[in-house]
Amino acid sequence: GTPFDPTNDPHRRFNPLLGEWVLVSPHRAKRPWQGASEEPNNEQKPSYDPTCYLCPTNTRVNGEVNPDYKGTFVFQNDFAALKQDTAQASEKKGLFQFETEQGCSRVICFSPDHSKTLPELTDDERLDVVNTWKAQTAELGESYRWVQVFENKGSMMGCSNPHPHGQVWAQQHIPTDPARKVVQLKQYFAENETPMLLDYAEQEVIKQERVVCQNEDWVVVVPYWAAWPFETLLLPRFDVQSLHKLSDSQSLSLAKIIGEITAKYDNLFETSFPYSMGWHSAPFDNVDHPEWTLHAHFFPPLLRSASVRKFMVGYEMMAEAQRDLTPEQAADRLKALSTVHYKKREN
Amino acid sequence: GTPFDPTNDPHRRFNPLLGEWVLVSPHRAKRPWQGASEEPNNEQKPSYDPTCYLCPTNTRVNGEVNPDYKGTFVFQNDFAALKQDTAQASEKKGLFQFETEQGCSRVICFSPDHSKTLPELTDDERLDVVNTWKAQTAELGESYRWVQVFENKGSMMGCSNPHPHGQVWAQQHIPTDPARKVVQLKQYFAENETPMLLDYAEQEVIKQERVVCQNEDWVVVVPYWAAWPFETLLLPRFDVQSLHKLSDSQSLSLAKIIGEITAKYDNLFETSFPYSMGWHSAPFDNVDHPEWTLHAHFFPPLLRSASVRKFMVGYEMMAEAQRDLTPEQAADRLKALSTVHYKKREN
Ligand SMILES: O=P(O)(O)O[C@H]1O[C@H](CO)[C@@H](O)[C@H](O)[C@H]1O
Ligand SMILES: O=P(O)(O)O[C@H]1O[C@H](CO)[C@@H](O)[C@H](O)[C@H]1O
Repeated sequence: GTPFDPTNDPHRRFNPLLGEWVLVSPHRAKRPWQGASEEPNNEQKPSYDPTCYLCPTNTRVNGEVNPDYKGTFVFQNDFAALKQDTAQASEKKGLFQFETEQGCSRVICFSPDHSKTLPELTDDERLDVVNTWKAQTAELGESYRWVQVFENKGSMMGCSNPHPHGQVWAQQHIPTDPARKVVQLKQYFAENETPMLLDYAEQEVIKQERVVCQNEDWVVVVPYWAAWPFETLLLPRFDVQSLHKLSDSQSLSLAKIIGEITAKYDNLFETSFPYSMGWHSAPFDNVDHPEWTLHAHFFPPLLRSASVRKFMVGYEMMAEAQRDLTPEQAADRLKALSTVHYKKREN
Repeated sequence: GTPFDPTNDPHRRFNPLLGEWVLVSPHRAKRPWQGASEEPNNEQKPSYDPTCYLCPTNTRVNGEVNPDYKGTFVFQNDFAALKQDTAQASEKKGLFQFETEQGCSRVICFSPDHSKTLPELTDDERLDVVNTWKAQTAELGESYRWVQVFENKGSMMGCSNPHPHGQVWAQQHIPTDPARKVVQLKQYFAENETPMLLDYAEQEVIKQERVVCQNEDWVVVVPYWAAWPFETLLLPRFDVQSLHKLSDSQSLSLAKIIGEITAKYDNLFETSFPYSMGWHSAPFDNVDHPEWTLHAHFFPPLLRSASVRKFMVGYEMMAEAQRDLTPEQAADRLKALSTVHYKKREN
């Protein structure tokens, strides 16, 4: 028979971070699409929107007035999924197990400018965002075991307000996916005496098959086990467990590489590229985590164009993630794109 | 302080089937929604659509002509994610692990009538669907370890053609989620000497807090650990491992209860209710699975109305699933609904 061709033949790849598999079916990309078509987001927004509850000086749902902020602005989520003072209770046996959760959730406005998403800010403005993530992580890590910094970008990703913003949720218990990572990373560390993701970053930098962009401190790859079509993993090239441990120069090089990957994303389909991104710093559970490496995921849903997305449904919900192009094909496309945002290009 | 109130206070519940937690934040349902609004699906479709590649006698993309079928109709997916003849290859060490996959994927048309989804068919027509699922499971289980029967209903769930249909994908390896279930169910069986889901069904029938509907053979519950707002779990009330082991009378009572739950779903927001559903029969790996109970999941995305859905994004993708109403609240609403489809109601 014909030998195995990874660019064309169905295979599964193993995600060693979560202990999961993903089904890769590259030939599926050829099928015609007559399903749902998304509204591309190309509307030019004003710098200030009087009806936006995140713009400076505007009034929020609960009656509070936003300050006339100039950089980032953090406030308590008016409809928080977590509360500080939930009474302790739990049931840990049988089929009806629960535990109460304590925590808090905050909104982080990235900029006073309603119209500017991360790739459209300057490096200095993005550095301000990085420093805010660091400060929030440090502060909330004092009180909670898990600090989840994330951004939902675009209405396709459940974002309810186009003003550039992210969130931070902190809680007492370590959630399911991070808990799985602790197990996987500890096992690798026990066997190899090095952090898995540091080894992985180094091997990807040598191979250069899935690297999208890199600088002296950071590398962005489409991971070997990527599930979403243009999913990327942002990794440090030095040993660090948590966002708040980054030096000033590492924070600046981070601000720069975030500018590059998010500009490439917008350039891919010349649209404001939707995604969910989030940071995984080590748990704040008062033990050392030498096995852990700080990292960020970008999970973007678009597949073929600004209007055709990947659906993780039926098979994916029941069995495992499935993708329609190889991670190498996705990396090649992202790598080839300019880091200059398409809106700023001279024509 | 105030004692814990599960109908209002944030807590986590444990999913013993997958070994995962879900964050329940009931008070979040009160937040205003200004995000994406979906197009409700209320268009009346014709019984025959000349442009539909699933209707009887029409020509498909690959040039094949559909027969003038009268009940269900099964054919090989023209853009299958799995192929029978992929050459064997694998790498099982290090950070770049893969294995090739062999399998097949088929489309199952539920009815020749383009306009009729599962709740709009008669019990006899739904029995024909159940019998087709059984026959496919038996046949593909001869060649493959895993047989995944599923349906993506509605364009919101990535369905590319409104003609009522589902799919069956079969493959050599046991996928991630089913493999997790094997571990969890085996552990419970080792400790309790009974199948977990049979115990669970019995306890839910006694409690009646989350039961949506039931008959002599089957029960539909919003599971204690449901992640999607109106997620349900369909369980047999007798010991059975696989779809193809159902007797004729168990198949008919299944056809009936599927009619009830899907009619309730459509009645909830008076719309053709989108969901992904799928069956988990035990793996076909030539060992007994006394720990396993056949079951089906319904994962529907809608939250508040025909146009406002739940997004499993940022926090959910990075940390764990999160829900905005309790499973008991969801069950109460579904239970109260008629099993007569809203389109058939006399006004
Ligand atoms: O096979 P279909 O209906 O074209 O495609 C749909 O179901 C598949 C299996 O769940 C998914 O992989 C696709 O993303 C979805 O659009
Ligand atoms: O908090 P927001 O932006 O209102 O809501 C969004 O992000 C949350 C956290 O990922 C999700 O639970 C919601 O489903 C989503 O719509």
